[in-house]
Amino acid sequence: MTTPGDVDGDDGVGRKKVGAAVLDPGAWSKVRCPCCLSDRVEPLVLIQLREEVHPDTKRWFISRIEASNKDGGAQLLAHPGEDEDGEVIVLSAPRCSLLRATEELGLCKPYSDGEMTAFSYHDRKSFKNTDDMQAFLTLAERQYIIKYELDSLRARKDLIIPGLPDDRGQLRSRQNICQKLQKAGVILDIVPIHHQQTLDQLGKSWYSGTQVWGQPLDAIQAYFGGSVGFYFSFLDFYTWALVPPALVGVAVMLFLPGGGATYSAKSPQPAAEEEEEAGLAMSGYMVQAVFSMVWSTIFMELWKRRSSALSHCWGVLSLAERFAEPRPGFQGTLGVNPVTKRVEPLFPEWRRQMRVGLVSLPVVVLFLGLVLMGMAGFYQGETLAKQLHQDWGSLLSGALLYLPSMLHIVYTNMLSTLYGRVALKLTEWENHREESSFQNHHTSKVLMFSFFNYFAVLFHIAFYKQDLPLLRKRLSSLLIVTQLVNQCTELVVPWLVDRFLRAPQRPQLEDDSEEDKIRAQRSLPPFPGLFSEYIELLVQFGYLSLFSCVYPLTPVLLLLNNVTEIRGDAYKICKLFRKPFCAPVASMGVWQTAFEILSFVSVMSNCWLLLLSPRIREFCLEEGISGRNIMLVAILVEHILILIKMVLAFMIPDEPDWIREKREQIEFRSLQALGQQKL
Amino acid sequence: MTTPGDVDGDDGVGRKKVGAAVLDPGAWSKVRCPCCLSDRVEPLVLIQLREEVHPDTKRWFISRIEASNKDGGAQLLAHPGEDEDGEVIVLSAPRCSLLRATEELGLCKPYSDGEMTAFSYHDRKSFKNTDDMQAFLTLAERQYIIKYELDSLRARKDLIIPGLPDDRGQLRSRQNICQKLQKAGVILDIVPIHHQQTLDQLGKSWYSGTQVWGQPLDAIQAYFGGSVGFYFSFLDFYTWALVPPALVGVAVMLFLPGGGATYSAKSPQPAAEEEEEAGLAMSGYMVQAVFSMVWSTIFMELWKRRSSALSHCWGVLSLAERFAEPRPGFQGTLGVNPVTKRVEPLFPEWRRQMRVGLVSLPVVVLFLGLVLMGMAGFYQGETLAKQLHQDWGSLLSGALLYLPSMLHIVYTNMLSTLYGRVALKLTEWENHREESSFQNHHTSKVLMFSFFNYFAVLFHIAFYKQDLPLLRKRLSSLLIVTQLVNQCTELVVPWLVDRFLRAPQRPQLEDDSEEDKIRAQRSLPPFPGLFSEYIELLVQFGYLSLFSCVYPLTPVLLLLNNVTEIRGDAYKICKLFRKPFCAPVASMGVWQTAFEILSFVSVMSNCWLLLLSPRIREFCLEEGISGRNIMLVAILVEHILILIKMVLAFMIPDEPDWIREKREQIEFRSLQALGQQKL
Repeated sequence: MTTPGDVDGDDGVGRKKVGAAVLDPGAWSKVRCPCCLSDRVEPLVLIQLREEVHPDTKRWFISRIEASNKDGGAQLLAHPGEDEDGEVIVLSAPRCSLLRATEELGLCKPYSDGEMTAFSYHDRKSFKNTDDMQAFLTLAERQYIIKYELDSLRARKDLIIPGLPDDRGQLRSRQNICQKLQKAGVILDIVPIHHQQTLDQLGKSWYSGTQVWGQPLDAIQAYFGGSVGFYFSFLDFYTWALVPPALVGVAVMLFLPGGGATYSAKSPQPAAEEEEEAGLAMSGYMVQAVFSMVWSTIFMELWKRRSSALSHCWGVLSLAERFAEPRPGFQGTLGVNPVTKRVEPLFPEWRRQMRVGLVSLPVVVLFLGLVLMGMAGFYQGETLAKQLHQDWGSLLSGALLYLPSMLHIVYTNMLSTLYGRVALKLTEWENHREESSFQNHHTSKVLMFSFFNYFAVLFHIAFYKQDLPLLRKRLSSLLIVTQLVNQCTELVVPWLVDRFLRAPQRPQLEDDSEEDKIRAQRSLPPFPGLFSEYIELLVQFGYLSLFSCVYPLTPVLLLLNNVTEIRGDAYKICKLFRKPFCAPVASMGVWQTAFEILSFVSVMSNCWLLLLSPRIREFCLEEGISGRNIMLVAILVEHILILIKMVLAFMIPDEPDWIREKREQIEFRSLQALGQQKL
Repeated sequence: MTTPGDVDGDDGVGRKKVGAAVLDPGAWSKVRCPCCLSDRVEPLVLIQLREEVHPDTKRWFISRIEASNKDGGAQLLAHPGEDEDGEVIVLSAPRCSLLRATEELGLCKPYSDGEMTAFSYHDRKSFKNTDDMQAFLTLAERQYIIKYELDSLRARKDLIIPGLPDDRGQLRSRQNICQKLQKAGVILDIVPIHHQQTLDQLGKSWYSGTQVWGQPLDAIQAYFGGSVGFYFSFLDFYTWALVPPALVGVAVMLFLPGGGATYSAKSPQPAAEEEEEAGLAMSGYMVQAVFSMVWSTIFMELWKRRSSALSHCWGVLSLAERFAEPRPGFQGTLGVNPVTKRVEPLFPEWRRQMRVGLVSLPVVVLFLGLVLMGMAGFYQGETLAKQLHQDWGSLLSGALLYLPSMLHIVYTNMLSTLYGRVALKLTEWENHREESSFQNHHTSKVLMFSFFNYFAVLFHIAFYKQDLPLLRKRLSSLLIVTQLVNQCTELVVPWLVDRFLRAPQRPQLEDDSEEDKIRAQRSLPPFPGLFSEYIELLVQFGYLSLFSCVYPLTPVLLLLNNVTEIRGDAYKICKLFRKPFCAPVASMGVWQTAFEILSFVSVMSNCWLLLLSPRIREFCLEEGISGRNIMLVAILVEHILILIKMVLAFMIPDEPDWIREKREQIEFRSLQALGQQKL
């Protein structure tokens, strides 16, 4: 055994000697079962250990990774990097482990008759491509399965991890090994490895090609995994869906002067002409409002259909997350799962719901209240400062004018940092069994807060100040300025960094060993997740559906933005970040709900804006209708519109007929199977 | 062969000779398979043919009933009554047919390990009681299975029914035989037979006992079937649930004078005292409104839990109606069902939904509009008549005063008769594949109309006239008068009829043959269904949740009403009507939705009533708050209350944990079975 110092360090030449052009094939774990033998082992995941890791620790960890499931191991293939005391472990998975996990995750794969069928290990021979894992599973699935197996790696009895001091290396029975090693600082990162050739091809057909529309969605899903696939599919669908409102927006702008110009300076016109224009203005308004409501409903319904078709094609229609192992962070008293009969931690559902309803929800509401208080404080402070400045008129009081907004910015920032931490802690404390449920609850918490932050000002202007010209001004500046800023910070800055700051490292890689290439991926920042991408879309959608009738060009601007957004996001995820792990998911999850809620709220907001429009106010004054009665009419109209919306949503089934048929076939078959099984 | 005239007619003596004390055991169809042999055949269903039925027709029909499923028959046991040209057929079912149908319907039965498990014919030996059909299936299930088998009796090729003229007896391939015979006037009635002994026992523990609370729900479900069981369970649950609001109502009445006396004559009081009382009044109001909202939410959530527990106990948690034969009235082009691979008529789902959304819904809305127009017309006519009477003051104009309300009554009656027909036709035209879906769509149509009719006046008073004292007067008179009238017409009149008009026939029955007893059941009117019972409860619930804060004693009156209602309904269904066929159902169906919608609407109506209350109006006037702003506050409060309601609904899971566990177990098992089946 060599001492760590011998090979460690930046000795590039030494490395090349060992790694050559590819990873040394002999250094992989021995394959146990004959069916898993193959000519070439595909490196899938890289585990980066800290530099001065003790060889005993590394050897022990590799032995856990290699051990069979029966012995409590992950049953994966490990490659110790350049040698056994290097700080890298490369992982792959034998065929059997991949197939077993495919069944456990509940993935559907093409059966010999061509139908997508939930994979069954017993019947593996009847599925297509089961002799070629690269064709059978997508890269994202293979990599996720490795993470899944690593996550289920638990200690079987109390022990001390070799090579670690007693106080940090103590592992209790059933404790998660990877989590422990990460906490102890032994594991720095677990990173899925980019497949450079596939990535280059993907990039060519995605963002560097000449076509403006269309994305290689299946290839994206295969390479990056479910949630990324769904995001880009949604972005695609949404961009297409913006075409009709953009056309209507332009039409209203051009032919119904009122739609766009209701709040422009009122030129002195002859009375008759003005009246006619007022009628036109109102109708333009109505057209916008009703159209945007109907559009948002149909859009969401059609997306649901598209989404379920996608989830069928991607084989994630019948995910069995509920029946799989609980997520690593899940706590509970050890017991027998009444459903699967496996021994695992249990936590009663009602306690989780109590925690969500009685603690998390009030805390979230409290924070939203704090945001509101901050806003109220800011407005009061501003009036106060203005008054002071008027009274005193000195330089000091002039500086005072800036104080409220500065205080508000500081307050908001502190609040959102604090909220981010609280939301994570709360969601962890809620103790969700499934990863997807954890993600959904966490996302919806952050989402509510962000949404509130984005829209509070607009709502304040629309509903409290009831100042439509200001709303219009604010909306257009938000649309134009924030989009420009977003595109810059999101895209141009990272590109510049990538191009000029990292460039010197680049040429070296050309003829580097595979291991060095793999290692180089760690130099990229980790993928920040899709939250900011989705929230951007949601806020857009909010501008569009909530307030669009105020500024008819909104959809046109959004359409332009999205066409560049697609390329930008694609470039970003391919080039500027590490490859993320993506669990197979069956839909957009909580984001779909968020969009639906927004499209529901849009009915109310549009009715309200209609009510506020100055022409209608004038009309009421002229006709002598009291504020109370016009309000009643507005509420009536609102309810009728909501009814129409619900009818529309009912009329468009959530899934295409052929998917429903497939689903029912599966249900029927499993009913039959259940009856026959007992024979 | 004797000619029909020989035995037909009212010759009671002749009948006794043949039928003796029980049905002649030898006349039953021969049992084909050895496992179905039993000492005694239980008569379950009576088919009444028209008097001069041709013996050939009867013989042919019996042969279809007896023929095995393979030969396109119903595989049931038939008894030709006194002889083969009598006008009665009595049906029973052999064990095999019952068991097969149990599997087809997807009923759950206790497995050998005690768990309720979807019955599987292959594995019948592992289920409890499969050697004793009386213990294995309830009476209602056995009888429903016979109806189910009769309904699936179809012609296999074009033929002419023997004994019928060519023009009426023509039967096309796949035409439903029973429907055809009913249309041709051969079958007059298909009636399930009462089991007198069981019925007497049931009656004793249900309505003639001394206990005021509690009903033998399981026995009711076993004897009458699912929907009746659910109705009485709901009635029971609802009556218990009325206790808390009744207590609160009494408390508000006693201790918060304002709650009840807000609209009583305003006595001249010292200003301070009045102000204090106003505060109390407002708080009494608030207490009622908020309490009734919270109560209705919790009530519905708890009922959902109870309902799912009941459906588990009654073995109807996994009904397989979707995979069974379509209902008799279902039309479609013949094809292979993609799910079950059976040949049957197919009709695409989207066309049904188009029909519902684009035709049925607008028609329903149109009719509701006509009701509204009628009401508007009535009010206008009334004012007009009053004016005329004032102007003329003659006897003729005095008579004119009654004209509008008479016209309105005629109009409403015509409209509702017409609507009843249109609703049935529309629902038939919508072409639902499953009986339950047909029922739900039909019920919801009729329901909307009835509800509108019941509540239009109250809503008109509350929202348009905004006249709370009138609302209060109307509500209390409705509660007291209609309940008394209802109880009378529902119960006392039929009881009198039963007691005095039918009494002379009674003594004869004592030592009659079993067949005559069976035949006597036909003299009872057919069971009119549960619609009127449910709508009564729904209207009650509406009075309570929508307007209760106007009249705090509502729950007390309802509680009293329901305690007698339970006994009355029980007596009615046991004694005054024929036994109905009840399909196994998993819940109250559309009624549950109706109650939930009502409890949702109640939030809005309570907020509105709060807003209308004169004290709040005075308060606003004093403080100088504009109508617009107070309205905004009301809308805000409403939205917060709806949010609270949704949180409550989320916090109380729809099914108890143990049911969820059972359901997941089944899902998991069928997933596993599906995997293993392909081995």
